[in-house]
Amino acid sequence: MSRREFLKKTGAVALGATALPAPKAWAGEGKFVWNMVTTWPPNLPVLQTGAQRFAERVREMSGGRLRIQVYAGGELVPAMGVFDAVSGGTVQLGSGASYYWAGKVPAAQWFTSVPFGLNAQGMNAWLGNGGLQLWEDIYDPFNLVPRPFGNTGMQMGGWFRSEINALADFKGLKMRIPGLGGKVVAMAGGTVVLLPPSEIFPSLERGVIDATEWVGPMHDLRMGFYRAAPYYYYPGWHEPGSCLELLINKKAYLSLPKDLQVLLDTAAMECNIWTLNEFEAGNGAALVELVESHQVQLRRFPDVLLARLKQLAAESLAEEAARDKASQRVHAAFEKFRKKIAGWGTLSEKPYYDFIA
Amino acid sequence: MSRREFLKKTGAVALGATALPAPKAWAGEGKFVWNMVTTWPPNLPVLQTGAQRFAERVREMSGGRLRIQVYAGGELVPAMGVFDAVSGGTVQLGSGASYYWAGKVPAAQWFTSVPFGLNAQGMNAWLGNGGLQLWEDIYDPFNLVPRPFGNTGMQMGGWFRSEINALADFKGLKMRIPGLGGKVVAMAGGTVVLLPPSEIFPSLERGVIDATEWVGPMHDLRMGFYRAAPYYYYPGWHEPGSCLELLINKKAYLSLPKDLQVLLDTAAMECNIWTLNEFEAGNGAALVELVESHQVQLRRFPDVLLARLKQLAAESLAEEAARDKASQRVHAAFEKFRKKIAGWGTLSEKPYYDFIA
Repeated sequence: MSRREFLKKTGAVALGATALPAPKAWAGEGKFVWNMVTTWPPNLPVLQTGAQRFAERVREMSGGRLRIQVYAGGELVPAMGVFDAVSGGTVQLGSGASYYWAGKVPAAQWFTSVPFGLNAQGMNAWLGNGGLQLWEDIYDPFNLVPRPFGNTGMQMGGWFRSEINALADFKGLKMRIPGLGGKVVAMAGGTVVLLPPSEIFPSLERGVIDATEWVGPMHDLRMGFYRAAPYYYYPGWHEPGSCLELLINKKAYLSLPKDLQVLLDTAAMECNIWTLNEFEAGNGAALVELVESHQVQLRRFPDVLLARLKQLAAESLAEEAARDKASQRVHAAFEKFRKKIAGWGTLSEKPYYDFIA
Repeated sequence: MSRREFLKKTGAVALGATALPAPKAWAGEGKFVWNMVTTWPPNLPVLQTGAQRFAERVREMSGGRLRIQVYAGGELVPAMGVFDAVSGGTVQLGSGASYYWAGKVPAAQWFTSVPFGLNAQGMNAWLGNGGLQLWEDIYDPFNLVPRPFGNTGMQMGGWFRSEINALADFKGLKMRIPGLGGKVVAMAGGTVVLLPPSEIFPSLERGVIDATEWVGPMHDLRMGFYRAAPYYYYPGWHEPGSCLELLINKKAYLSLPKDLQVLLDTAAMECNIWTLNEFEAGNGAALVELVESHQVQLRRFPDVLLARLKQLAAESLAEEAARDKASQRVHAAFEKFRKKIAGWGTLSEKPYYDFIA
């Protein structure tokens, strides 16, 4: 592929010619040099650093036979060009979240997180029991193999410049909230605004938007939102356990010997749980810092409001699922599994969280 | 080591001489043939089958360079001889739960589960953020390297022949409940009975014991306890997220090239999450079956009783921790981490479980 074609195909940002890696998978003698692009900013803790940690682990485990060079969003292709770059074979690996590709593959949204859906433990259990097979089916036409690659855990509900006491308070509210959660906010009368990460803080500070969600305490603290909006709401009903993804170019995957295929799968699963561990521990510490050092005012969405949002979410999901056969199939499987484990959750983790305080 | 020494050292059950594998780690040409003993009955779902699945994955990932032969409890050494067999180098790998070795290493108990302690997500986060380093320190004098190797998730409170409405109902109650949970039941006035797995059902059926805990719906269903006791209590306050362990003989571990060391670690972590996934999905389905097909009567321990048990657990843990320096150190680290993430759990997973029903 010529440099011109490469740039055209991936929409790569301008880079010095020397910065462009050779797009070859094969480095001779049973050795592979692969490139990985992510949707994350450089050095973003846990997400980008996790991708780098993964690459290092794969190198160690393979005795140097599989080397992965990791590029942050925009370094080689734009963040939102990751799917196409891996699908088209420009690079072999990508990392992001499947709901970024909703415009291309609506059914992909269910594999990140669903409003009032499954938490991290539930997502992992679903993916391990039929969910991943479905995900593979959905991505197969794109020459992609997906792997769960991390989970943020339960997120926070977002930062608000004014209090939210009832559904009516969403009326006219300008909120940065992507994905299926954004659809629910729109149904509630809000105006959904999508902004690149770097523009969220100034927009919130200047009142261009009234609210934003991001991830959880650890990453929200880093973004400084506490300086722009006083109320920090929970729970993050819109993303109860967002699963991140590793995208593997299927042709490249199949070109690997079997041992390196299983090694890659296993290293991805290790990254999956490592990421959740980092979020769980990091959020715990950051929450204390937000409250104690920055006097953030925590607010819980009222139960009546949550019940209404849950109804809207169910309507919204049914609408989304009706858009194509693949979404319908994934939605049905997701709901079946969610209902299957809900009773068990009520008897196990629910009372656990009742006694931790 | 002679066969006589082998039997003496490990307390192995009598086996035909031909059944004893050669205890060699090295099979020449960079290849390793290792033996693994577990504490589980043959074919025990998820636990024993998970160990076999792990061995197969390691074989695949290593391109056949590391082959592991798995033996169930009693096949090569008695279930309770696993720690000594791996520590002494008779075999290279073992699998069980660290609280089985409480008599030898009291501090080991914290790495399985602590009454009113951490759930699976909390245990994983702790082990990933300092806990594993402590565990390694505790096992180092025994020439052992520990790795988390699965988690049962939150357990059930047990099967009771009569209802439990208050702490007084534990008075004189004969219950099969091992570990730190058993100490709490004893403090509440109960009589703790320890029985091998095969004797639990008949003892419960004949009224030799009044109650037993086991694991959760999936494994409890298989044991048939619903035919011997009508009341199935929750939550499993005594084991909120039991972590299973992989034991690696340290000398054998260090004899591996670096790539196989990291490969083994990574495969163990994959097994860790796979196990939890299987429990989460399997318990969901088994609970429905227990209630719908076997008319099991679910009972929740009253909140007042749980609050009293929690007080007793705190006293019991403080007493245990005071027994030696290592326990004191582990207990302090565990409590520090538990408190660090408790606030976050209250804002994240707690409200999640409030809206799943």
